[in-house]
Amino acid sequence: FCPCQHLIDHFGFLENGTFKQRYLLNDQHWHKEGGPILFYTGNEGDITWFCNNTGFMWDAAEELGALLVFAEHRYYGESMPFGEESYSNAKYLNYLTSEQALADFAVLIKALKKTLPGAQKSSVIAIGGSYGGMLAAWLRMKYPSAVVGALAASAPIWQFIVPCGEFYKVVTHDFTISGTNCSSNIRMSWAAIDRVSATGEGLQWLSQEFGLCNPLKTPDEVYGFKAWLQETWVNLAMVDYPYEANFLQPLPAWPVKVVCKNLNFNTGVSDKQLLNGISQAVRVYYNYTGDAVCLNTSQTATGNLGFLGWFYQSCTEMVMPMCTDGVADMFEPQPWNFQAFSDECYNQFGVRPREDWAEIVYGGRNISAHSNIIFSNGNLDPWMSGGVTRSLSESLVAIMIDGGAHHLDLRYNSEFDPESVIKTRALEVRYFKQWIKQAATTQ
Amino acid sequence: FCPCQHLIDHFGFLENGTFKQRYLLNDQHWHKEGGPILFYTGNEGDITWFCNNTGFMWDAAEELGALLVFAEHRYYGESMPFGEESYSNAKYLNYLTSEQALADFAVLIKALKKTLPGAQKSSVIAIGGSYGGMLAAWLRMKYPSAVVGALAASAPIWQFIVPCGEFYKVVTHDFTISGTNCSSNIRMSWAAIDRVSATGEGLQWLSQEFGLCNPLKTPDEVYGFKAWLQETWVNLAMVDYPYEANFLQPLPAWPVKVVCKNLNFNTGVSDKQLLNGISQAVRVYYNYTGDAVCLNTSQTATGNLGFLGWFYQSCTEMVMPMCTDGVADMFEPQPWNFQAFSDECYNQFGVRPREDWAEIVYGGRNISAHSNIIFSNGNLDPWMSGGVTRSLSESLVAIMIDGGAHHLDLRYNSEFDPESVIKTRALEVRYFKQWIKQAATTQ
Repeated sequence: FCPCQHLIDHFGFLENGTFKQRYLLNDQHWHKEGGPILFYTGNEGDITWFCNNTGFMWDAAEELGALLVFAEHRYYGESMPFGEESYSNAKYLNYLTSEQALADFAVLIKALKKTLPGAQKSSVIAIGGSYGGMLAAWLRMKYPSAVVGALAASAPIWQFIVPCGEFYKVVTHDFTISGTNCSSNIRMSWAAIDRVSATGEGLQWLSQEFGLCNPLKTPDEVYGFKAWLQETWVNLAMVDYPYEANFLQPLPAWPVKVVCKNLNFNTGVSDKQLLNGISQAVRVYYNYTGDAVCLNTSQTATGNLGFLGWFYQSCTEMVMPMCTDGVADMFEPQPWNFQAFSDECYNQFGVRPREDWAEIVYGGRNISAHSNIIFSNGNLDPWMSGGVTRSLSESLVAIMIDGGAHHLDLRYNSEFDPESVIKTRALEVRYFKQWIKQAATTQ
Repeated sequence: FCPCQHLIDHFGFLENGTFKQRYLLNDQHWHKEGGPILFYTGNEGDITWFCNNTGFMWDAAEELGALLVFAEHRYYGESMPFGEESYSNAKYLNYLTSEQALADFAVLIKALKKTLPGAQKSSVIAIGGSYGGMLAAWLRMKYPSAVVGALAASAPIWQFIVPCGEFYKVVTHDFTISGTNCSSNIRMSWAAIDRVSATGEGLQWLSQEFGLCNPLKTPDEVYGFKAWLQETWVNLAMVDYPYEANFLQPLPAWPVKVVCKNLNFNTGVSDKQLLNGISQAVRVYYNYTGDAVCLNTSQTATGNLGFLGWFYQSCTEMVMPMCTDGVADMFEPQPWNFQAFSDECYNQFGVRPREDWAEIVYGGRNISAHSNIIFSNGNLDPWMSGGVTRSLSESLVAIMIDGGAHHLDLRYNSEFDPESVIKTRALEVRYFKQWIKQAATTQ
């Protein structure tokens, strides 16, 4: 028996089909009959990958005598409502929403508590990072009977409503503080690329210099090349961890510092000298292992993330306006253009984004009526721009992790952890204990 | 411009059609720039009828300097997502759910605050009765950023999970306390009907005695006749108001007492004597005006309620188990049979009810994480059986109205009001003021 059989549509009664949601379970530390359940609210990817990158839960389970549950998000990994056809058309994709995913989690929790011997009285705590952290917070907001509290790590629940330039400002700041002239040289690289790539010979040089698997053939392809570089800088800022790690890619400790060592020359060098530095810098990200034969501009991170699914979600309800101006940030100026984005979504999926819906359904800045949520953010993480970085009440607590990148607190303890994240994890566990105690007295 | 244009489907992006939600607005007492908004969360019927039967809001608006908004529920009154075709098939009916209705309310509130001059800073309080009261409570639970609090009058939010016999016990109790032998004689009437109707002559007598518009022709039709009687007793208990009123039907003050005057003879009279009493009793309900030429067993209450829509809702998510045993209540024994109900729903609409969904999505008994909701109930009202009748926290407050029927507190002040309801209304307004003040300090 699997309690993970879910309705494809929780919010309508015509579509009565079901699908299997994958979830992982570990009870090695569980004190049955009352020991809590730590419930990972899966995000846009394969759940085993999140499971392997959320060591904090394994450490916390030992301390709390907790059962671990990692629940996969519908339309990712193996949890496909229409099997291999799930992404084949707009009709099948229609049930890929955060509201449906939250309902899956609430139903799964109910089913586990009903069917798992010893779980009936267990308090459930939702834990997630990034979009999964948003889901953890929203699960507590929308289904507080299912979970006694939530840890929303690096969860940009306000990315829908903050000024569009904030995100890239943080990215830029990370590079600015990680090496002399680092962000300045990146800022100057875009024009250098344009100049060099204006000739066929230049395109060839650029392709060789970067060791591209698919050499650039026309100046039109330069736009995509620059977008790939931009995403590379963003990803580096996200995973700027204090030790060797393999989250999006295998990387050295403090990878942004390592990148910036290749970009610490004076500004104003020749275009080719500048781009040589850039090519060395991106190799830190794409070829730390030394195994890469060439660089593939069609992908910037692990294949465990479901990019197409996330694109659909951002094309529907997860509309996060982004823009750059080249002054407050190190990127080429690009204003936010909702209409163009909407048209792109329509061409790709046949749907249009609903600009205001996320704010209405999840409350925007006005969430003080809720309780028992920790919002943790790292000050190196670009996503902190949309995060809750100040406590809103005694039980809606913000924790800032100095020197922390994207949900560093969710990772295993490490000897290289900064003091800030050690303290953060301890505080988080203290809140968990408090919520469990509170639930025991009110139920 | 009408801010009431809503998406037919808030929870999917394939159906991109919209419809107009009707709402009524009254600003005669409104102190703009900060005066609150009392927002009626419309239930299963024509909004003008609820508007005319919710005098409390008009009285409270004067005291609070409030704007009144009465929002119609989709698929009722004139708010039809697919016009006259809305009820024509399962596909069109698929968007008739409480979740969609709540989203309509949240979107409408957002739009009103954005577009109505003076409303931007106004605190909104949700008010509703019966299913509308459930919606008011759920709106506060699910969209606390939209409303600072809610008055849920006679809202049986726990009817999904209480023992199935509770409802009819309260009905019976009302008749027991309203006259000697009243409930006993009704309890005995069912068998009397069966005996009398066993012959053709008896059927004819019965039809004449009750002045039925459509005489009973076969013993098969007696089942429907008894169901009509049962619903009549239920409705009488619901509208047992202390003064002449016209909610479901035009009725005298304390109609159950008037009914019971026709049933105060000793138990054990002849079948025809007993049924003569019953026929006099039901005429109190169906012919108080004296205008009825005959009694129509196909309808028990005002045409302003949308019975078909409510039947669909109870056939999908609003599954309220009901049963009788003839001992703790005055009705014929009838156990709750989910499967039979489900089959009936499938035959009628092509959908099947989801037994556990309401409890999962709306939290069941575990709702103490929420705040600022008043649950008022009358101890004469059968629906109090599924209501919150004890306070759950300082801000989840239960008020019992002694001598109150179905949401008596929502009606206009009357000189015949019992002390209990006068106090209740005053207390409700005091909480409104407290919520408004609280919101002003936290925003």
